[in-house]
Amino acid sequence: MADKARVQEAIKIQGEVVRKLKSEKASKEQIDEEVAKLLELKAQLGGDDGKHQFVLKTAKGTRDYNPKQMAIREKVFNTIIGCFKRHGAETIDTPVFELKETLTGKYGEDSKLIYDLKDQGGELLSLRYDLTVPFARYLAMNKITNIKRYHIAKVYRRDNPAMTRGRYREFYQCDFDIAGQYDAMIPDAECLKIVHEILSELDLGDFRIKVNDRRILDGMFAVCGVPDEKFRTICSTVDKLDKMAWEDVKKEMVNEKGLSEEAADQIGEYVSMQGGRDLAERLLQDPKMSQSKQACAGLSDIKLLFSYLELFQVTDKVVFDLSLARGLDYYTGIIYEAVLTQAGVAPVSNETQQGAPAEESVSVGSVAGGGRYDGLVGMFDPKGRKVPCVGVSIGIERIFSIMEQKAEASAEKVRTTEVQVMVASAQKNLLEERLKLVTELWNAGIKAEVMYKKNPKLLSQLQHCEESGIPLVAILGEQELKDGVVKLRVVATREEVRSIHSAHIMFVLSHTDTQICLDSNETLKVCM
Amino acid sequence: MADKARVQEAIKIQGEVVRKLKSEKASKEQIDEEVAKLLELKAQLGGDDGKHQFVLKTAKGTRDYNPKQMAIREKVFNTIIGCFKRHGAETIDTPVFELKETLTGKYGEDSKLIYDLKDQGGELLSLRYDLTVPFARYLAMNKITNIKRYHIAKVYRRDNPAMTRGRYREFYQCDFDIAGQYDAMIPDAECLKIVHEILSELDLGDFRIKVNDRRILDGMFAVCGVPDEKFRTICSTVDKLDKMAWEDVKKEMVNEKGLSEEAADQIGEYVSMQGGRDLAERLLQDPKMSQSKQACAGLSDIKLLFSYLELFQVTDKVVFDLSLARGLDYYTGIIYEAVLTQAGVAPVSNETQQGAPAEESVSVGSVAGGGRYDGLVGMFDPKGRKVPCVGVSIGIERIFSIMEQKAEASAEKVRTTEVQVMVASAQKNLLEERLKLVTELWNAGIKAEVMYKKNPKLLSQLQHCEESGIPLVAILGEQELKDGVVKLRVVATREEVRSIHSAHIMFVLSHTDTQICLDSNETLKVCM
Repeated sequence: MADKARVQEAIKIQGEVVRKLKSEKASKEQIDEEVAKLLELKAQLGGDDGKHQFVLKTAKGTRDYNPKQMAIREKVFNTIIGCFKRHGAETIDTPVFELKETLTGKYGEDSKLIYDLKDQGGELLSLRYDLTVPFARYLAMNKITNIKRYHIAKVYRRDNPAMTRGRYREFYQCDFDIAGQYDAMIPDAECLKIVHEILSELDLGDFRIKVNDRRILDGMFAVCGVPDEKFRTICSTVDKLDKMAWEDVKKEMVNEKGLSEEAADQIGEYVSMQGGRDLAERLLQDPKMSQSKQACAGLSDIKLLFSYLELFQVTDKVVFDLSLARGLDYYTGIIYEAVLTQAGVAPVSNETQQGAPAEESVSVGSVAGGGRYDGLVGMFDPKGRKVPCVGVSIGIERIFSIMEQKAEASAEKVRTTEVQVMVASAQKNLLEERLKLVTELWNAGIKAEVMYKKNPKLLSQLQHCEESGIPLVAILGEQELKDGVVKLRVVATREEVRSIHSAHIMFVLSHTDTQICLDSNETLKVCM
Repeated sequence: MADKARVQEAIKIQGEVVRKLKSEKASKEQIDEEVAKLLELKAQLGGDDGKHQFVLKTAKGTRDYNPKQMAIREKVFNTIIGCFKRHGAETIDTPVFELKETLTGKYGEDSKLIYDLKDQGGELLSLRYDLTVPFARYLAMNKITNIKRYHIAKVYRRDNPAMTRGRYREFYQCDFDIAGQYDAMIPDAECLKIVHEILSELDLGDFRIKVNDRRILDGMFAVCGVPDEKFRTICSTVDKLDKMAWEDVKKEMVNEKGLSEEAADQIGEYVSMQGGRDLAERLLQDPKMSQSKQACAGLSDIKLLFSYLELFQVTDKVVFDLSLARGLDYYTGIIYEAVLTQAGVAPVSNETQQGAPAEESVSVGSVAGGGRYDGLVGMFDPKGRKVPCVGVSIGIERIFSIMEQKAEASAEKVRTTEVQVMVASAQKNLLEERLKLVTELWNAGIKAEVMYKKNPKLLSQLQHCEESGIPLVAILGEQELKDGVVKLRVVATREEVRSIHSAHIMFVLSHTDTQICLDSNETLKVCM
């Protein structure tokens, strides 16, 4: 068995590696890691019967979603998609892989994290790294100059999941973008309105939306005396201000990036500023800042933006924050990021091998971000025609984690099906009757279930209802069949009504979801 | 520029290939194909400015979905998911790639069509080829013995899209499966009920669901004198009966597969049989067939199945057909396939380079298929524990194509957004008022839109409504603002009501989708 030989050879090599590590006094973690690899290889060899056995796992950095996680995911998607649709967005879909060269040169250093497909004879392909570049490719390829679209799909990054904990290599992105030449700041303001609506509706706790402008950052760097070629690197240092103290950021600027202490101090003054329209107003009068045309253009747009945000009634959560400096190169104007401000929110996953480290489980996280990118589509157009774009990406994976934690902490059980009624029998030999009734219910559009047993016990049928949260049971017995009626029982209260016809169940179930009123004086309360 | 050199070299080689083809009197198609490749390479070199240009395309065999296609797709998904939920199914999701060895040995010859990921240092990974194998891996890995789940996701096959026309390399699968040890044929019958419900609800025209059993096929081969080792290959020949005449199938059996003419003729008699419960009854008495224990077990189950199908009220479309022989190795019991029986259905895509050939555009297609596979999960379990499964896969891509063609042929326009009302202005300088009103509507949950212009023309606002099918316009003018009212216009009929307050619009729009009644005697009819 060639396979077996291969694995045995690999185990031999692994054994040598382990010995070497030990002789070199490697750290305990290094050894553990090698031992784990060894055990995995051993598992591949199988048991004593020599039968080949599978390593039962998903690929590194990926996970399955179980029905409970899917139920939560569906709820979150419905809220978000509902908001996108309320704002008149269409949706598109693109393939999970693109020509490799479509992605080349779009992500800077991160390009090394792109998954490539094996060259099996044909084109060179890579898995998509985000949804923005495929969107720009789609617009250029189809010569679309105006669209408001959302796209929710999985993207792929060969990040080290052991290093950046709680992050997966396969994860959802959830993007809303407006492409087109429009009057300044109107679509930009709508993106912020959408973030405000989604975060409010998802009820994740208090949040703040920080706003800045790439042009204000660049102008600020210029008037503070940062050399042109250092804009990007200083910008990425400023970006660390949400995790590092100013003193450490300054040290990095001066010691690592070679900026003068004077320039750093001037930057320090600006990036500590937060406010609203008034701050933009004030900075337009600032003797230094007003020297930069770029900064003035950005500041005027921030002013205009805030006037629209007031009409949209969202200024309570939006703050103009000069320390916001999002990493991506392709932004050309306004940028923004939403963070949860409530303490104690643990935004990382709780059930993988990549458990959340203590310091992250108390951090507050970014849950949305975006900005204006007027140049990206032009990179794909043969004639370089520009299509201005502004968009926002909802940090859906972080939101899933928070919702899962909330569900875990809550007493309320997450239902994974929507079954309204279970068709059960009290005696033996009633399978035929059960199948007839459940057919009537299905044909009437009722969500109904029946156990796949000829003679299930009543108790096990009722237990199934309690376990999966089915609110009602329709119980068939010999007496009921003689009388031509069905017994209907509310699982939670055990309240029962005997004299009800199957047609009545249908009427009742198709006309209300929360309360069931019978035509007599009896009332059955049902929570669904 | 290394890239440029590479492309120029490639062009040189291509040029040589073309010359060679011509000298060899290659077919016009071959030359055209080579010329197309040449032009593509040339395009990569870019224009005269020497700027590198992208090849603007999606990977071979893949496509984008535009908003119209997405709207149709969403409608189909909603119908199908609605049915799955009505039957109490949960849903799960698995990663788009699996460990390569998870897929190894599951697909027989088709394994060569699996997409592998490049070895970038780490595990060997492959894109999923279907949803069934990841489902079996999920069950074994999580030791789940009972679940009723659906899974709708994309799968990947390196099929030659030029050869099997209308097929994509990235396409959706839509699976419903019931795992668990239950009484015979009850879950199997529910799968057929589900196919019946979905195909009826999608309104694709008349259909038939063919049913057979792997054990009946094997028993039939045995009693007809097919040697054991030829079961699989003869089975795959029988599978061609829906595309080939019996005479040709027989020829293949005798001439290519080396079967005796006598055995082939006996098979020929059986596979021409179609019927219902009565046919199963008759074959149980058949002197030859009744010699096979396997066949008898299958025939008894077919009888039982039909008794449940009668209770489910679906026997009008189900036929027991001994010629049905689905290809997959892992089936162990009942198998089924649904076909559209209406002539003139063209099940292939209509807008890719892989246009439908004439002979396929009149064929009738398989739109669902499945069966029982009691052994697959055991292949993943370290102790070989079996989890019996039965499931069905809806041929969603074919259904998309049919729905797209129907939409194309229909006069009714496919809406790509759900916007209920457009907030427009009749005069200049009313942006602020428009933004205020649209905010009120959004906050009340109304789907509303506003143009991103300071001073759009009324005509262009109305045109946008007509183009995108928005049924209502709320028009603001100076007079209306003075009077504190809004003018509401039905786009289709141009009917207008002047004296309506914004709160009233909200009331009206949130309480009905099809007709709008004002509190006065006026009635606005709106189709949405």
